[in-house]
Amino acid sequence: MAHVIDSEVFLAFSTYATIVILKMMFMSPLTAYYRITRKAFANVEDVGTAKTPEEKKKMLRVNEDVERVRRCHQNDLENIIPFVLVGLLYTLTGPELSTALLHFRLFVGSRFFHTIAYVTPLPQPSRGLSWIVGMGTTFSMAYHILNTVLRL
Amino acid sequence: MAHVIDSEVFLAFSTYATIVILKMMFMSPLTAYYRITRKAFANVEDVGTAKTPEEKKKMLRVNEDVERVRRCHQNDLENIIPFVLVGLLYTLTGPELSTALLHFRLFVGSRFFHTIAYVTPLPQPSRGLSWIVGMGTTFSMAYHILNTVLRL
Amino acid sequence: MAHVIDSEVFLAFSTYATIVILKMMFMSPLTAYYRITRKAFANVEDVGTAKTPEEKKKMLRVNEDVERVRRCHQNDLENIIPFVLVGLLYTLTGPELSTALLHFRLFVGSRFFHTIAYVTPLPQPSRGLSWIVGMGTTFSMAYHILNTVLRL
Repeated sequence: MAHVIDSEVFLAFSTYATIVILKMMFMSPLTAYYRITRKAFANVEDVGTAKTPEEKKKMLRVNEDVERVRRCHQNDLENIIPFVLVGLLYTLTGPELSTALLHFRLFVGSRFFHTIAYVTPLPQPSRGLSWIVGMGTTFSMAYHILNTVLRL
Repeated sequence: MAHVIDSEVFLAFSTYATIVILKMMFMSPLTAYYRITRKAFANVEDVGTAKTPEEKKKMLRVNEDVERVRRCHQNDLENIIPFVLVGLLYTLTGPELSTALLHFRLFVGSRFFHTIAYVTPLPQPSRGLSWIVGMGTTFSMAYHILNTVLRL
Repeated sequence: MAHVIDSEVFLAFSTYATIVILKMMFMSPLTAYYRITRKAFANVEDVGTAKTPEEKKKMLRVNEDVERVRRCHQNDLENIIPFVLVGLLYTLTGPELSTALLHFRLFVGSRFFHTIAYVTPLPQPSRGLSWIVGMGTTFSMAYHILNTVLRL
């Protein structure tokens, strides 16, 4: 184990996976921030600052800015978690360090750009392209795994 | 490490986990396909093909076919990710190859059937049963882990 | 590998990760239970018990109790999956058993409390605080990883 855990590929994977998971987790406080500034909540127990029942009801609403951040978070769940899971298995197949680094950097960079493109929002196809680059990176690692270890 | 990574159970797990994650990721382009063919988008920057502001507004809508694919994707996130995480820990407890293969094949098969049953849609209980088979498989592996390694 | 898999930290991680994933998976049957008792479904093939088309249409509705459980499930996906992924990498950096146990117990305890606070619902800030404790635990482990293995 020691030689795998201490391998440069595994250390690089741990670094990039942790960074991109932190980026994904950051969407939670960002949603909270938008909910508070836009006064748009989902739960009746969250509108304690409202004084009248009418005001409470008004704050239980859907806001487009909040929904945008939530869609971005959902897209992260759909793309970053597969990257980390596939990336871990890929790392354990013992790839070349330079190839692995290329995959990790491309994916993490594309997802940071994706978040900026989604939340700003930037005009298309910036968001679409960054999404495709991320998907392609994970597909490439998945292909490498199946090519190396296939046992059905 | 080498003897674990090279163990037949680990190679089989890597194969099935990668395949079922690829199936889950496939839901993203499928959603995009339905959004484009049904002309039902969520973001204002995605309706660039519309010419008039009225047309743009009309394309920012909820479509039942799109929502169905999205619910199927969400169900995948809720079931396939736990399978991969629990399956990895299960693999590291050193189970019998035949027992492990039974779990992996049953789960992956049930999820492919679940997607077909959801997107088509097939009449119930086809979707419900395939969901229960997948859940049961993951529960069985979780039980095996707790039975083997419990340290509270 | 054997000495890592047999290490007390890894066994403890496997135990707590499995328990908290099982808690997350439990939200699926809970949603099904609420959908059936509140007669609020999302798919047309799920309302087979209705006899008339009007009754069917009435059962395809959004119910606040169902949505609450679904939001709780979504919050689990956003928090528990990062914990398991970061926790695995953290475990492989070889932390002190007592420090690791503190992280695992704090996180799992906070998430059980979070579910109770969300579904009951308990007045705020019970849900907010349990969410922050869980986030903080995962951030602390992520910091430890980057501090130990950083390779960019």
